[in-house]
Amino acid sequence: MRPVSVVGVGLTQWGKRNDVSLGELIVESAKHAFEDTKRLAPKDIEALYVANAQSERFTEQAHPANLAAEFLGISPKVTARVEMACASGGAAFRNAFFTIASGQAESALVSGVEKMCNVPSSEAMRNLCLVEDLTWESFHGMIPPSGFALIASRYMHEYGVTQEQLAKIAVKNHKNGSKNPIAQFRKEITIETVLESPMIAHPLNLYDCSPISDGSAAVILVPTKEARKYNDTPVDVIGSGQFMEPSFNCSNMQSLTTWRALVNAANNAYSMAKLTPKDMDLAETHDCFTIAELIEYEDLGLCKKGEGPQLVDSGDTEIGGRIPVNPSGGLKSKGHPVGATGVAQIAEVTEQLRGEGGPRQVDGAITGITQNLSGFATHHVVHILRRQN
Amino acid sequence: MRPVSVVGVGLTQWGKRNDVSLGELIVESAKHAFEDTKRLAPKDIEALYVANAQSERFTEQAHPANLAAEFLGISPKVTARVEMACASGGAAFRNAFFTIASGQAESALVSGVEKMCNVPSSEAMRNLCLVEDLTWESFHGMIPPSGFALIASRYMHEYGVTQEQLAKIAVKNHKNGSKNPIAQFRKEITIETVLESPMIAHPLNLYDCSPISDGSAAVILVPTKEARKYNDTPVDVIGSGQFMEPSFNCSNMQSLTTWRALVNAANNAYSMAKLTPKDMDLAETHDCFTIAELIEYEDLGLCKKGEGPQLVDSGDTEIGGRIPVNPSGGLKSKGHPVGATGVAQIAEVTEQLRGEGGPRQVDGAITGITQNLSGFATHHVVHILRRQN
Repeated sequence: MRPVSVVGVGLTQWGKRNDVSLGELIVESAKHAFEDTKRLAPKDIEALYVANAQSERFTEQAHPANLAAEFLGISPKVTARVEMACASGGAAFRNAFFTIASGQAESALVSGVEKMCNVPSSEAMRNLCLVEDLTWESFHGMIPPSGFALIASRYMHEYGVTQEQLAKIAVKNHKNGSKNPIAQFRKEITIETVLESPMIAHPLNLYDCSPISDGSAAVILVPTKEARKYNDTPVDVIGSGQFMEPSFNCSNMQSLTTWRALVNAANNAYSMAKLTPKDMDLAETHDCFTIAELIEYEDLGLCKKGEGPQLVDSGDTEIGGRIPVNPSGGLKSKGHPVGATGVAQIAEVTEQLRGEGGPRQVDGAITGITQNLSGFATHHVVHILRRQN
Repeated sequence: MRPVSVVGVGLTQWGKRNDVSLGELIVESAKHAFEDTKRLAPKDIEALYVANAQSERFTEQAHPANLAAEFLGISPKVTARVEMACASGGAAFRNAFFTIASGQAESALVSGVEKMCNVPSSEAMRNLCLVEDLTWESFHGMIPPSGFALIASRYMHEYGVTQEQLAKIAVKNHKNGSKNPIAQFRKEITIETVLESPMIAHPLNLYDCSPISDGSAAVILVPTKEARKYNDTPVDVIGSGQFMEPSFNCSNMQSLTTWRALVNAANNAYSMAKLTPKDMDLAETHDCFTIAELIEYEDLGLCKKGEGPQLVDSGDTEIGGRIPVNPSGGLKSKGHPVGATGVAQIAEVTEQLRGEGGPRQVDGAITGITQNLSGFATHHVVHILRRQN
């Protein structure tokens, strides 16, 4: 295995994108990623990974990897569309990382894309429900909001967290997202905004939940030894971890409040990077619901189990705090075009480590971590990135 | 990169499987694959790749990789659902191959599955049409049967082939499939059966086309140095090649009758294996339509360009001939549960190389090749397997 670096990242505007087709959305982020590199053109790409959850349902277009090859004009000799529901982006990036690390290809493009606003929001919600077990859970109403509400209720019971503390996570992420030009919601909110918003599934209100979005993100990877040819500030991928619980159902999880798959994925990534949580300067995590970000603090090791609420109150996860989480605005404010989310996390951390975060820059950031989940938090992908000296 | 071997294969009965759910179908083939190994249990599996094209449309169940983990009771540290339309199986197997080759994992399970008969056949056909470009082709009626009919017409114009010669391919594959206990159609047919069957898209009749099917296939891979622990007759994966044309549309292909992506994928596989087409003892190819198998003879190098029809007439692709093609019955007779097809090709070649082909055994087979395609033949995956001495 050889070292791997990120040499180009690109994002589209996220939100409602009725102005473009699925293929055009793929091109838009890839174009930015190629512009972010030097001397690398689409024709040079040897591996293509497309992260997409449900183009066949949202846009009536299956086989998005071949669509991407056509729209980008590339001929990959290694290629796959990776579908891992909300963690498609992290999983596709991990595949591309190992493709370069193992010498299968000299360059890889990861394109994450989802176009969800193409269908009425009721249909979009229905599509999202299909990522849970049809027979035993989704059919009976155990769908993402109710599942994460159950997790939140259990956390309240075991460790105690208030709705105000959960709301603070949404407030922080909206504040960060207000400084992100591509974010779907660029407006600050207050704790009252969250608490007074419609109840979705107790204890989660509308503003505890991430939205339905269109958007795309692209990342270009090469071997580290070639990286400076393509970018003056390469960012190295120094850790990668993944884990899936032998459960798909919420009811089979060993614990609702300690996500074993996340603990294992994070440990694998820290171990590969030979670093600990204390070495992280920022994190982009999967805040599909505010309770998710809270548990992620703990299971990523950013604080001890049960101390997430105090970490929220301390302000240490704000930009300027000890360990800023979701400086991009997270899924909550930036948006959650499912297949693009995990790829965009890599893009945000890369820009932060290069010092290109603009008004949301985490000062002096050298090392960052990303975490992307799917199912009822039964599958996680974690990556650790570091700026080259 | 280290050598990789197949140590277990398993198939379900293919055809209409209203008796089982998607998860149960996954378990059924995996159970056979584990029974085919020694001393390897589901809990030992470190990498899981699920090949599936459209579970979210056919069965209202997305995220099949997590479903598979639950039904199989496994906790993979490397996992992805690979969707590459009709080539999902070949692409997933290739990912698993490189996962073992690069040392990411010590064991991998590839599960290919599709449950297509869950929906009315008109809806199944509509789902299949989504694998072509919605904007420029499928919307206007350029769907798989019409696309391959165009390819057949062009082949007739450039090189000449008769409908009778195409029909002979279907007759051969039904003869082979009649000897395959898991095949969907276990009955022999005649040239007249094909020519007198309803016209689908000129010059292709119903019996020139593969069917809609339910089915699953599973393959277990380990490093070659460990292979004899798990199976007395390991089969080594000695070549792997993939290629995608920078086109999704039939209209953008450089040639309809020479598939550049197949030529490149095959060359890459032969080159890795350090072998030539002459060294192949059998082939399992992607006969979604009879014309496809004909062009595959040529682009895999089993005969010269334009000489496919003579190869058909010679009988050399029959079991007992120079280079038997699709001894399993192929997609045409065995069935085509999309995500399972490429995995089942590996299973058939493995069984043949072990001498376990029963009444359809290719005598003395030591080396075999598989080929799986998607789109309008714009993406191909090729593998070469050899029995260990």
